[in-house]
Amino acid sequence: MILEQIQGADDVKALTWEELNILAQEIREFLIQRISRTGGHLASNLGVVELTIALFLAFDLPKDKIVWDVGHQSYTHKILSGRRELFEGLRQYGGLSGFPKRKESPYDAFDTGHSSTSISAGLGIVQGRDLLKEDYAVVSVIGDGALTGGMAYEALNNAARLKRNFIIVLNDNNMSISENVGGISKYLSGIRTGDGYNDLKKSVVYALERIPGGSQMIERIKRTKNGIKQLVIPGMLFENMGITYLGPVDGHNIRMLQKTFQEAKKLDHGVLVHVITQKGRGYGPAEKNPAKFHGVDPFDTATGEPLKEKKFPSYTDVFSRALCRLAGKDERIVAITAAMPDGTGLAKFSKRFPKRFFDVGIAEAHGVTSAAGMAAAGLKPVIAVYSSFLQRGFDQIVHDVCIQELPVVFAVDRAGLVGSDGETHQGIFDCSYLTCIPNMTVMAPKNRWELEDMLAFAFQLGKPVAIRYPRGEAYRGLREFRAPVEYGKGEILYDDSKTGEGKEQQPDSRKESADIVLLAVGSMVSTAEHIREKLMARGIRCSLANGRFIKPFDRELVDVLAARHKVFVTLEENVLQGGFGLAVADYVHSHFPEVRVFQVALPDAYVEHGNVSVLRESLRIDSDSVIRSMEEHGLLLSHRKIHPMR
Amino acid sequence: MILEQIQGADDVKALTWEELNILAQEIREFLIQRISRTGGHLASNLGVVELTIALFLAFDLPKDKIVWDVGHQSYTHKILSGRRELFEGLRQYGGLSGFPKRKESPYDAFDTGHSSTSISAGLGIVQGRDLLKEDYAVVSVIGDGALTGGMAYEALNNAARLKRNFIIVLNDNNMSISENVGGISKYLSGIRTGDGYNDLKKSVVYALERIPGGSQMIERIKRTKNGIKQLVIPGMLFENMGITYLGPVDGHNIRMLQKTFQEAKKLDHGVLVHVITQKGRGYGPAEKNPAKFHGVDPFDTATGEPLKEKKFPSYTDVFSRALCRLAGKDERIVAITAAMPDGTGLAKFSKRFPKRFFDVGIAEAHGVTSAAGMAAAGLKPVIAVYSSFLQRGFDQIVHDVCIQELPVVFAVDRAGLVGSDGETHQGIFDCSYLTCIPNMTVMAPKNRWELEDMLAFAFQLGKPVAIRYPRGEAYRGLREFRAPVEYGKGEILYDDSKTGEGKEQQPDSRKESADIVLLAVGSMVSTAEHIREKLMARGIRCSLANGRFIKPFDRELVDVLAARHKVFVTLEENVLQGGFGLAVADYVHSHFPEVRVFQVALPDAYVEHGNVSVLRESLRIDSDSVIRSMEEHGLLLSHRKIHPMR
Repeated sequence: MILEQIQGADDVKALTWEELNILAQEIREFLIQRISRTGGHLASNLGVVELTIALFLAFDLPKDKIVWDVGHQSYTHKILSGRRELFEGLRQYGGLSGFPKRKESPYDAFDTGHSSTSISAGLGIVQGRDLLKEDYAVVSVIGDGALTGGMAYEALNNAARLKRNFIIVLNDNNMSISENVGGISKYLSGIRTGDGYNDLKKSVVYALERIPGGSQMIERIKRTKNGIKQLVIPGMLFENMGITYLGPVDGHNIRMLQKTFQEAKKLDHGVLVHVITQKGRGYGPAEKNPAKFHGVDPFDTATGEPLKEKKFPSYTDVFSRALCRLAGKDERIVAITAAMPDGTGLAKFSKRFPKRFFDVGIAEAHGVTSAAGMAAAGLKPVIAVYSSFLQRGFDQIVHDVCIQELPVVFAVDRAGLVGSDGETHQGIFDCSYLTCIPNMTVMAPKNRWELEDMLAFAFQLGKPVAIRYPRGEAYRGLREFRAPVEYGKGEILYDDSKTGEGKEQQPDSRKESADIVLLAVGSMVSTAEHIREKLMARGIRCSLANGRFIKPFDRELVDVLAARHKVFVTLEENVLQGGFGLAVADYVHSHFPEVRVFQVALPDAYVEHGNVSVLRESLRIDSDSVIRSMEEHGLLLSHRKIHPMR
Repeated sequence: MILEQIQGADDVKALTWEELNILAQEIREFLIQRISRTGGHLASNLGVVELTIALFLAFDLPKDKIVWDVGHQSYTHKILSGRRELFEGLRQYGGLSGFPKRKESPYDAFDTGHSSTSISAGLGIVQGRDLLKEDYAVVSVIGDGALTGGMAYEALNNAARLKRNFIIVLNDNNMSISENVGGISKYLSGIRTGDGYNDLKKSVVYALERIPGGSQMIERIKRTKNGIKQLVIPGMLFENMGITYLGPVDGHNIRMLQKTFQEAKKLDHGVLVHVITQKGRGYGPAEKNPAKFHGVDPFDTATGEPLKEKKFPSYTDVFSRALCRLAGKDERIVAITAAMPDGTGLAKFSKRFPKRFFDVGIAEAHGVTSAAGMAAAGLKPVIAVYSSFLQRGFDQIVHDVCIQELPVVFAVDRAGLVGSDGETHQGIFDCSYLTCIPNMTVMAPKNRWELEDMLAFAFQLGKPVAIRYPRGEAYRGLREFRAPVEYGKGEILYDDSKTGEGKEQQPDSRKESADIVLLAVGSMVSTAEHIREKLMARGIRCSLANGRFIKPFDRELVDVLAARHKVFVTLEENVLQGGFGLAVADYVHSHFPEVRVFQVALPDAYVEHGNVSVLRESLRIDSDSVIRSMEEHGLLLSHRKIHPMR
């Protein structure tokens, strides 16, 4: 195996062209085998095998810097830079990250995860290089999908001013995570297919050549800086912006790629190399259905089918069906996604209501403000987006939705820990960044039925509202609790206090009434349920309430609970700062100074990749850890006496 | 006066061309006179007088919808839609807003304030119109500066797919707030000047006309959708994106504008009308120096000079000088602005260190991530940006700066209440959205000297750090307190507790030791100082501490203070949720359950326009209001007894 000899860029450079092609084949097989076992991003990585090899040939790595946009296509980069043996632990706790990490290797020049950042980061590195008079190349590799993101354009606009070399590689597979949309996509497609364009170009040149003065005119055309370069090259959009365009180049021809990169290195300004690749290349099922093989769980390599059959619907599935049901009854309901119709469950809606579905591309900012526009025009828009990506629309929520109190529904998927994608994708800030916004309502469902009810409620509310729900299987417990959703009202699930009327009275096993109440939101309601069960098994009773509304939280509910209990525990899957627990605690402390409050929340730290249940344990938000914390804080042994926690 | 007869669109339409030109002149005089008295945005409004008149002629307002990007250029729009008489109260508390407000008039189709939102909002309205089968025109008016913002491009990319009419008016004055930057600017400039382009176009057409088959070729060129339209029209950048381009049009020719808009209305897809205007037009001083007359205080119309001479430096001035001083000693310091070199005080830096200065355009997202890239490459970047605009870079701070702990300094200007710009510009969320981010440090200076010290400290810290400071004059009190800035450490200014050692011991006038301590951050330190003085005058002593660090707040300081006092008052100029006070309160409550905590912060609401001191009173964060609140909560009369606040 050639692959086994590769520990870094020098080993790649020592190979012949023939060996390089064999290497590409071996990498593909390696990727398919490994990802079929561990899960991970497949299709995008299969698309850039030759491109990555060519970058390792043409550049002097790790001295030269490559910034991989989004970063989930950096597996070949990781393999070639000596991390092949770590792939057994890919995306697992303590193992290899699925994204570039500066901490992991000097080959990783900049951490990525979200889309459309690479040109900005690369340009910043270029500016540092030039001011510090250093000498290395900087390459940003960006997909065509990522080009729909506004900050990529902001960066191109700035790159246009450069007087030194900066290479942007456009990895164009005509498909980002889902199908591409909009003007840019059409434009690139025009270049790819020729679209009658090249012929026309040739005939104009041909025509000019045969008239008196025509050849001078062609020369003049070629030389005119802001003139009619579009006659001779296809990338006029980029040229118009001041970026030299090279391409298109076959992204699976290592030699051609290497040669083009060598050309690009010679220029003394920004240059865009347009590379055409095929997503999923070399693995039949992925070639046929690249979207399905974007991010995969372990699968059977022969069939491409997942090894584990999904048994129960995820929150995304529940949202997807509930939305279609509601939309069937209300024509004003429209849905917006930022390039994630599959991930957010909107694909179903898009098929049933194609005219009412808007995929805006990787453009959360535009997505949010256009939703505000739709609401102003009388529609009932829902924008379904991952918690960590909605961060891109923060200003638009503050400025365009909430000032005018426009009825936009935010379906905040992947809220809380997401697992193997790691730091960049954890949805652990939305409680904080959404609740500080005036006129915003934030809800979180305890189980699948509550998500359905909350969605119906949200469309009737007539104000900005977010529903946050986690990745993965929707909770199916607590089904018996399905009181109608009322604005700002939580619900008591079990009141085991002396004065309370618990629905599950078991006076026999009950030594004393509950001093503790657990007030949880969203995913933590089921955790709190487990905590309660485990405590009951130890003879300790506690009450349990579901907040339902994170903002505004239910003050009356807190009044009732605080009056009946001595220890108040809040639980949320969000960082503590700015979240649910601090707000509730402040209220309890001000109004019930004798009640002790304890918050369960995530610490003030980024959360790395790993299995969600492993992460929950490591962050001490699983039921056993919470019980241990409660013990450590003396809440279980002597919860009748209030004492400082110091 | 024709102007006095105008109460709405019908009155405008009833005028002859000659009267319309007189009207334009009268509006200009009105604007200069009124804004010279009230202050406001001048240059941008003088530039769009004819454009606005033409919009009122060509469209059926308010049935048709105009979305004014940024919105500060909507004064003529307000005048023509019947709000002329309200201009005496422009931007004053309870008076006319300086921005479009749906609540103010049916002519205002969408609220704006931040840049680059109008195409997204307009497109959303178009989609609502079409789905609800309504019939009206939608026009988004966007400046060339706003086109450097990524979300405008995201919106253009989406507008390209439209099959129904949507009109984008590009108000091109070759200058947004400051000088334009980047590829787009160069491109537009090329169109404006012709740049040899039109001649060349003509000669190619001429040449083709005289060869066999040439005229068919021209026809074919004209018809080719994605082909060589650039031969016949100049707006190929937009055409490439799928938007029909009309123009350029003289923006001061009402008849021409009206005619072009009529043409634009006929198209069944997105169309961009390129209008060339002159900022400051018709007022000599503003024509000569449009940047100075962007937003103005009251001025002498004869000279253009402000009526009130600025006596003392603002925080912006202090930052500006301190930065230049530090940068003179450290070549790694670089500065970034998002189109605000004057507003943020970076103009001075840009002149002294032009190679180390980066104006990225209205592109906060790119600005933040390119700063991260610069830091990764070894520079020490500071990005100076208004608090409310930094909301645009929220995800980039979370994702590109703080995960990698890159040493980017955020100079967060206009933090707190900004006054007459109103809801969209108040900087009242940054404590919340910055402190929820791991690895982020947030500071706020009590006075001008502390800002200098904090800035020096920030560049040495080697981690992400924000310094928030308010608009307006820098506080010059408390100069005697200038202890070195230490990480995470606040300072006690006056400790009047029994055990404390107050710097200002006055045992004579002192009936009893202080039970109250005020812990303030930033602008609220001076307010707290006034509260302390007023309470002392009433015989009530209280201690005073300056938090300095909002995140991490100084736990040791809180320990010391809480141990010595019975009432703990936190003060901040930020909303309560997610801010300083809730975090400190939670710590105090957990560790000192006997201490009562009271937070002074802004309510959970947007804050309208008005004089800052009026707003502070209305929001009850001025010293008298805080004292009244403390009284109402029983903190002054019986502050020895802890009782619930209910």
